[in-house]
Amino acid sequence: MGMMGASLALALRKSSQFEGRVFGAVRSQKSADYIRSTDLCDEVHVVSSGREAREHFDSLPESSLIVIGVPVASAVSLLGDLRGIQHLVTDMSSTRAEVEKASAGVRFVGSHPICGSEDTGPQAARPGLFETRLCIITPSPESRNEDIQVVSDFWKDLGMNVMSMTAPEHDRILAYLSHAPHVISGLMAHWGMSDAVAEAVRKSPVPLTGGGFRDMVRIAGSNPEMWLDIIRTNRREVIGSLETFQKYLADTIGLLKGDDEQKMMEWLRSARLKRNRLCGYPDDK
Amino acid sequence: MGMMGASLALALRKSSQFEGRVFGAVRSQKSADYIRSTDLCDEVHVVSSGREAREHFDSLPESSLIVIGVPVASAVSLLGDLRGIQHLVTDMSSTRAEVEKASAGVRFVGSHPICGSEDTGPQAARPGLFETRLCIITPSPESRNEDIQVVSDFWKDLGMNVMSMTAPEHDRILAYLSHAPHVISGLMAHWGMSDAVAEAVRKSPVPLTGGGFRDMVRIAGSNPEMWLDIIRTNRREVIGSLETFQKYLADTIGLLKGDDEQKMMEWLRSARLKRNRLCGYPDDK
Repeated sequence: MGMMGASLALALRKSSQFEGRVFGAVRSQKSADYIRSTDLCDEVHVVSSGREAREHFDSLPESSLIVIGVPVASAVSLLGDLRGIQHLVTDMSSTRAEVEKASAGVRFVGSHPICGSEDTGPQAARPGLFETRLCIITPSPESRNEDIQVVSDFWKDLGMNVMSMTAPEHDRILAYLSHAPHVISGLMAHWGMSDAVAEAVRKSPVPLTGGGFRDMVRIAGSNPEMWLDIIRTNRREVIGSLETFQKYLADTIGLLKGDDEQKMMEWLRSARLKRNRLCGYPDDK
Repeated sequence: MGMMGASLALALRKSSQFEGRVFGAVRSQKSADYIRSTDLCDEVHVVSSGREAREHFDSLPESSLIVIGVPVASAVSLLGDLRGIQHLVTDMSSTRAEVEKASAGVRFVGSHPICGSEDTGPQAARPGLFETRLCIITPSPESRNEDIQVVSDFWKDLGMNVMSMTAPEHDRILAYLSHAPHVISGLMAHWGMSDAVAEAVRKSPVPLTGGGFRDMVRIAGSNPEMWLDIIRTNRREVIGSLETFQKYLADTIGLLKGDDEQKMMEWLRSARLKRNRLCGYPDDK
């Protein structure tokens, strides 16, 4: 149980929809002590491996829903140990394809509640983390209808908006709207310090960057370990979306070279409209 | 006098360093009425053309500093009418090359106080707009040393940090750190609504975009008229910086294709460090 798992425990214990018990499994004694001292779960167990986790899960009531809340690479490995388990399993991973592949032989419906944060560990738990946010569930062809319903209702009862799509759809869309933008933000930081600019940046008495640039490189400051995990487990789609971006960039440079005032104005106006649609703002914002 | 000019008048009248009088020239009777009713200037004149502005300026005390605060294209045209004027002239334009070219025959030292805002008109004036912000002055080979000093001190007395560079340097650096990022932000809005994603964006019960993407497309919502003016008057440098960006993008796609975990981690860590240096944050932020 990291930040997401602990937030989930908190939200469940606060929810009027949920009448069951919350069992937590953590890897360190320190996390277990913290969870006990703050009464985050009804029970907490320390498990030092996937096999120990499996043994613990096997002892839980059959109607339990197991929610995996670990980094993608660890979720993939843990699912291997859960093959043949009786319980319904879901997860909270940011990329889906590798997790779905690893879930073969597990009674599984994948979930991606989109509400991460830079903060880590159970100490960073927030009970309202899931409320009003979006959860994408990614049933596989093997998922049973009644299990899909259980997982969907589970998130809805926590106040989430639930949307269903396939794992490949999920990974493509998130590549565009989340993973590749992280790469582009990092790219802008590298480019903003390229030879043509670096000396002036160093010489300036105050930062040369305005609010626009600053906003665009904000996520270049994200946790590198977490993002390497996400980018590597969705590498093909991230590359694909960046290659599309590359085409758009070439077209835009062509537009600027053409210097057609009216076309450039249309491009700027349409960018503003699309940005409003993407962010859920009114058209005239 | 738009937002910038009116903010300048307010700041001057508030400043303990400035003992002179503030004369304003505006194009509309409505703006003049507003400026009179709010006592923004000691005197305000309505001028309907560059020639009328010139006649008005000729009548001002010889020691006056004339500060042009109009869109770049209008500044270029106005400077043509000021050829041979006795007074020292500066401006507040966001791009420098075309303004510098137009200043031939004018006693001129260019300025770019970096403190724009989306709000327009004298009603949006703020007295503290210039404080602690950066002003780049761009003396030309023709600028006299004593005039450079006057213009530099003028902005320093308003609490600005002043940095001097040539007009071409200015336009290159601002292309990277301000103008091209606006283009990239708009590009991301177009790309974020491309075929691979648009349907999911429309179907989602809540906006699919997280905080990262949202920050990166914020400036795609900027005033299109203003940005078209800026991009067109610095088109060569904007194209040049985007072509460098294109090379960085190709290299980054190559890095992802290589899938060398250590190299990718170094790239992410170094992006974070460069972003901190660019924004003036501590290295470990």
